[in-house]
Amino acid sequence: MQHINQNDLLNMAQPFKTQVINSLSGFKSANLIGTCNKKGINNLAIFSSVIHLGASPALVGFITRPTSVERHTLENIKQTKTFTINQVNTNFWQAAHQTSARYDTDECEFDKTGLTPLIVDGIDAPFVQESMIKYALQLQEIIPIELNNTLMVIGKITDIICDEQAIKNDGYIDIESLNTVMVSGLDSYHTSKRLSRLSYAKPDKESVPISINGAL
Amino acid sequence: MQHINQNDLLNMAQPFKTQVINSLSGFKSANLIGTCNKKGINNLAIFSSVIHLGASPALVGFITRPTSVERHTLENIKQTKTFTINQVNTNFWQAAHQTSARYDTDECEFDKTGLTPLIVDGIDAPFVQESMIKYALQLQEIIPIELNNTLMVIGKITDIICDEQAIKNDGYIDIESLNTVMVSGLDSYHTSKRLSRLSYAKPDKESVPISINGAL
Repeated sequence: MQHINQNDLLNMAQPFKTQVINSLSGFKSANLIGTCNKKGINNLAIFSSVIHLGASPALVGFITRPTSVERHTLENIKQTKTFTINQVNTNFWQAAHQTSARYDTDECEFDKTGLTPLIVDGIDAPFVQESMIKYALQLQEIIPIELNNTLMVIGKITDIICDEQAIKNDGYIDIESLNTVMVSGLDSYHTSKRLSRLSYAKPDKESVPISINGAL
Repeated sequence: MQHINQNDLLNMAQPFKTQVINSLSGFKSANLIGTCNKKGINNLAIFSSVIHLGASPALVGFITRPTSVERHTLENIKQTKTFTINQVNTNFWQAAHQTSARYDTDECEFDKTGLTPLIVDGIDAPFVQESMIKYALQLQEIIPIELNNTLMVIGKITDIICDEQAIKNDGYIDIESLNTVMVSGLDSYHTSKRLSRLSYAKPDKESVPISINGAL
């Protein structure tokens, strides 16, 4: 095993270090965030930083930079207080990656990548038609992370659109059956293969595999 | 496709809703966080909320509740300002899940689950010997998320211990080759299968598959 210490990290060339550090947090979720600006131009951008914050209230967050390529997403969310999160699947992972290109404000990533906007009455942000599990959120808070000048954008889930068969008896959603992909590092995409669900862990006995429906 | 609206969400039974909402953010990283208290008792707890925040400075965060089962982790980090993050792999995913049981403060999850603490000189938190990619962090900040009374704990990476062969020419770490697993929902564990790495996306041309070493 290689031990990279603080000094090695200080002396590491920048692009190399960026790849290394981006690999450390493990597999990351791959999601497209859909927004719309005041002029009605849709925006779509891939994020690997979407994170579950809690079920009650149903809160999800993501990390963004104020001045990065994804700034359109942030600007639009500030304007409309609304965004959608759409899980990326094997049918459009390359198109999803392409949304990270630096398109201009008046260019729409849907047009550029061939993905289809799905507009739902009462929701001021576009979903991605091709995604099999997606949801709309209302902006709750933008928390500055001053250590590196990033922001955590937090939304409350208002609507969920999901393939019905993927929702199991106990509420677990089989995102593997929806071919949801994940990211490692900056640019590697992966599919999944289930080992098992496991029973709730208790101190006095070992947890055991349970069925996809949550049954022992 | 099923459309679950705000009203449906309000009326959803609690355990069912917890499963649903936990499935929405996509695949989550599976990591064991190692800490040590003042008395020298090691603690180990699984977290699916570890998130990359930035490469320079090298910052990683995770979400915790002040009063949850993982409170020992938080208390220990406050005491020593140090923690380790260890990617879970296929060799110990069940033992890793077992660390989520509510053991007492004076019970050590290493003893209870059979995992092996690895102590490194100068680092006041234990690594997990069985993990093939792990790193130590120095506490930087604890940011309260008042919306749901959670906390984001942010650390700066000081040391990385990683299987040498997994680090590719451009710094990308092939965590798939290290059999790193991921989580969906609350309790489902998965392995990965790479689709491909993709080239950096530019507006004027489609990104294309690149080799594991980052070469076109």
